[in-house]
Amino acid sequence: MPLPSLIESPLSERELILVRETDVPREKLYAGWTQPELLMQWFTPKPWITTSCEINLRPGGTCKTIMRSPDGEEFPNVGVFLEIVPNEKLVFTDGYLPNWEPNPNPFFTAVLTWEMLPSGNTRYTARAMHWTQEACEKHAAMGFMEGWGKAFDQLVELVS
Amino acid sequence: MPLPSLIESPLSERELILVRETDVPREKLYAGWTQPELLMQWFTPKPWITTSCEINLRPGGTCKTIMRSPDGEEFPNVGVFLEIVPNEKLVFTDGYLPNWEPNPNPFFTAVLTWEMLPSGNTRYTARAMHWTQEACEKHAAMGFMEGWGKAFDQLVELVS
Repeated sequence: MPLPSLIESPLSERELILVRETDVPREKLYAGWTQPELLMQWFTPKPWITTSCEINLRPGGTCKTIMRSPDGEEFPNVGVFLEIVPNEKLVFTDGYLPNWEPNPNPFFTAVLTWEMLPSGNTRYTARAMHWTQEACEKHAAMGFMEGWGKAFDQLVELVS
Repeated sequence: MPLPSLIESPLSERELILVRETDVPREKLYAGWTQPELLMQWFTPKPWITTSCEINLRPGGTCKTIMRSPDGEEFPNVGVFLEIVPNEKLVFTDGYLPNWEPNPNPFFTAVLTWEMLPSGNTRYTARAMHWTQEACEKHAAMGFMEGWGKAFDQLVELVS
């Protein structure tokens, strides 16, 4: 069951932050983010779909996805994992291409955490941290909050 | 004993590469890079010195150093570790500040590898990979090859 959204302030004008609480255990949420066959089922807010997902879960490993728009256009995406703490934290970015090659056009770094609350619920925090304020504003205008929020709801529904 | 320098081509116009061979075992070279009390003794080409070094050796952990010029000016520096394979590979960058905050002015990412050769020697490869070609050219003009080469010689002398 998704619970009401929480509000938390970003740390800087280069950061977007989404905080949500759920009664789903964090192990299930983490599995949804790290197992391709699960990720493909919730990652893109409908009516978009994820048609492909490859995950190499180690620092420097890649997460390759292909998203398909309602009219059939495909958007491949490659991210690189930076930090992995099973069930607790996942950090990834497009600031690198494979083999630590710096991406000339870095957009953002995602820092995801799943905290177990005293109530037994899980608090999910997604920070999107940008190299520039301009990129941050663009990301907000692209609908980060709505998109990531909707994707979170889809994940909760899937693994509940 | 330092052996002659080797020449290897960079992978792109955004990369500088230094390759050296030595009969020092890679475990000793890796120790020199990861133990502060060793690092301080070789890290800066003389007459510069390193006056402080703190290392938190994990992905996302920092390496904080202070370098002092011959006329006493101090230059603090913070890097963040990205990938750590003991005795084999070390990747770090100034593209991030602590806590994965993107650095608005990223300069380069270092990918260091130590390979054991059939001869028993160690091949050290230092790749400096930049977000822009401009940064790469600046780094070359700052004397990357000479500076890192001299520092390597100092490390080899220290741990031999």
